Amino acid sequence: MPLLVMKFGGTSVADLDRIKNVAHKVQREVDRGYDVIVIVSAMAGKTNELVGWVEKTSPMFDAREYDAVVSSGENVTAGLLALTLQEIGVPARSWQGWQVPIQTTSQHSAARFVDIPRANIDQKFAEGFRVAVVAGFQGLGPDGRITTLGRGGSDTTAVAFAAAFDAERCDIYTDVDGVYTTDPRISRKARKLNKIAFEEMLELASLGAKVLQTRSVELAMRFNVKLRVLSSFEDNDETSGTLVCAEDEIMESKIVNGVAYSRDEAKITLVTVEDRPGISAAIFAPLADAGVNVDMIVQNISERDYEDHPGAVTDMTFSVPINQVERAKRAMEEAKAADKIAYDELIVDTDVAKVSVVGIGMRSHSGVAARAFKALADENINIKVIATSEIKISVLIDRKYMELAVQALHDAFELERA
Amino acid sequence: MPLLVMKFGGTSVADLDRIKNVAHKVQREVDRGYDVIVIVSAMAGKTNELVGWVEKTSPMFDAREYDAVVSSGENVTAGLLALTLQEIGVPARSWQGWQVPIQTTSQHSAARFVDIPRANIDQKFAEGFRVAVVAGFQGLGPDGRITTLGRGGSDTTAVAFAAAFDAERCDIYTDVDGVYTTDPRISRKARKLNKIAFEEMLELASLGAKVLQTRSVELAMRFNVKLRVLSSFEDNDETSGTLVCAEDEIMESKIVNGVAYSRDEAKITLVTVEDRPGISAAIFAPLADAGVNVDMIVQNISERDYEDHPGAVTDMTFSVPINQVERAKRAMEEAKAADKIAYDELIVDTDVAKVSVVGIGMRSHSGVAARAFKALADENINIKVIATSEIKISVLIDRKYMELAVQALHDAFELERA
Repeated sequence: MPLLVMKFGGTSVADLDRIKNVAHKVQREVDRGYDVIVIVSAMAGKTNELVGWVEKTSPMFDAREYDAVVSSGENVTAGLLALTLQEIGVPARSWQGWQVPIQTTSQHSAARFVDIPRANIDQKFAEGFRVAVVAGFQGLGPDGRITTLGRGGSDTTAVAFAAAFDAERCDIYTDVDGVYTTDPRISRKARKLNKIAFEEMLELASLGAKVLQTRSVELAMRFNVKLRVLSSFEDNDETSGTLVCAEDEIMESKIVNGVAYSRDEAKITLVTVEDRPGISAAIFAPLADAGVNVDMIVQNISERDYEDHPGAVTDMTFSVPINQVERAKRAMEEAKAADKIAYDELIVDTDVAKVSVVGIGMRSHSGVAARAFKALADENINIKVIATSEIKISVLIDRKYMELAVQALHDAFELERA
Repeated sequence: MPLLVMKFGGTSVADLDRIKNVAHKVQREVDRGYDVIVIVSAMAGKTNELVGWVEKTSPMFDAREYDAVVSSGENVTAGLLALTLQEIGVPARSWQGWQVPIQTTSQHSAARFVDIPRANIDQKFAEGFRVAVVAGFQGLGPDGRITTLGRGGSDTTAVAFAAAFDAERCDIYTDVDGVYTTDPRISRKARKLNKIAFEEMLELASLGAKVLQTRSVELAMRFNVKLRVLSSFEDNDETSGTLVCAEDEIMESKIVNGVAYSRDEAKITLVTVEDRPGISAAIFAPLADAGVNVDMIVQNISERDYEDHPGAVTDMTFSVPINQVERAKRAMEEAKAADKIAYDELIVDTDVAKVSVVGIGMRSHSGVAARAFKALADENINIKVIATSEIKISVLIDRKYMELAVQALHDAFELERA
């Protein structure tokens, strides 16, 4: 029998009525002839409650106990959904991670999948069960204790099951009805995409599209699992939502498919840094050690007067999440105090935002950057930093122009048109 | 190292502060040199919440899913207590039933212990852990799924662990500070007992003393596990609470050690029943089939005129819980309609209560019944039914005299004096 993986997040299973709604969506797929593996999150709010208790009990908690406590939320949902399915006549049972068993690495609270053996669940399908409801976000470590997978763990569980069971598709139900060309709250012209390539989704997710966790998209890309994002709260058919799939399954892609943004950026400039081999490592190693996530990096010759510096000098600019600015500053100051790096001044700009255009079509089309820069220039938006990849162009601009920039770029690439 | 089992119920672990209080009690025993196995219930209210969800989802629920959902409450407490212990420097870890593994029978929601293998927990003690925090009320069935033990399951888990690990003692922490000679709300002269025999505790528990579940006392008696009942909310020392133990460890027992009562009784009399061999079976078999818990039974020759009945006739009186009266009546009427039994009239008295005096000393002392009956007669309390066992005398009386009867008996046997 063909098999489908369906995943429902916390808001989709927030109470008994919503669980009933989920059960009907599962039933419909069973009626269509699928065996179904459903991955569930904890009821909305439950994980936060449990995490709160753990953190209040023990600020430097033992991650093994954290996992034992926090995983209970998903177990409750799995049992309740199995009961709800039984109640409407669908043969279902719940599975906790250790029962499958979902084998993971030993890093508690941040475990990764090692193996998902099919035997136990396959046997139940063979016995006539049509639905396996699996508690997401958890597994069994080599120490025989419960592990959890960290952020995005439930999406990732769904993709891992889809890969292990050769699922026809992995449907991720969420509170939006798909992936949009940009945030509809910023541009009313935002349009839902019917298909998007894994690579594009990765750029959009990590840039803040927040629909799918990066990690689950990476896993889907690696195992070529077709992902579909769709709404828990609407009636769906086979064409609903957005399909995230391999590039070669998208017949005609536009050059640009989305405009992403990130509001919480900060720009740090080290003024008058010695320009020598190894200077980048000297700067970015202490930042990495301090856990600072450096995003864009630009090295440029300053136009200021360098007469005090006889050797070659440069300015180094990079962006970090705004809540890591203090950590980054401290790391730089300590490195300077330890004579590992030298600079005249450290300038922080916390009034910046990042805007990016993303599209696999860029690989084969030139002129995208020029078109983007012109769109911004037409609105008199000054670009502070530029970074590009194969399928993405990102710019750092004044935060107050962020919405305007998103709208201008969305218009410039005519994203409102399918 | 000597080993102690400690058990904390739902009110004792109702919030993080109370869990901290529990941790300190455990720490004290560790400091005294014990390895400790702690059995915990779910935080007060949590089990009811989970049961409510299950029942609302599926009135005729699949007990396997019920168990999977409901057991999560204990798992949360176990993790939180382990973290709290670690936080105050006590090497502790949590254990879910399947990790021990606590092997039970397959009756989901009403499972019984099959085996508690020591190897896993013993190994952790050998590695330097001092405390094993075990989620109570749950186990692992032969089907590889979670089972729960039904009412009183956490007390029973504690006793079973004490037996399996040869514990020096099993301390049951609860919201009262011990077992009393009677209910202190009824007699201000009620006195806490320092020691009580298993048999007496069984009679007191089943008669409504509600401190320990009958099943756990039975198990303790079978394996000769010393049980101590004491308060979670007081400072305790070695002599606190009440020790429930084998008769031969109680040097000098009084003749009577407690006065128990049960308010929710009803008396049913079948008037003019044929007095022949097999008549008792004919009456009580249909009651048992209907799930009626018959308690006291008296068969007596009525003083009324039996001239309509040429054969030998009798009256049959029995007591049942008041909420089973309708069920009992229906069973009797159906048996009569089916010509399995014959009686002239069925009289129900729902205004009765049961009062009992309990004491292992009765075995070797006569005159206890006479003393009890005199005490009630002195208060003009009419006795409706009498039933006796080796260590107990119970009477059924008008409910309005219940408190008076308890006080009179407590006085008559001088239970206020140690």
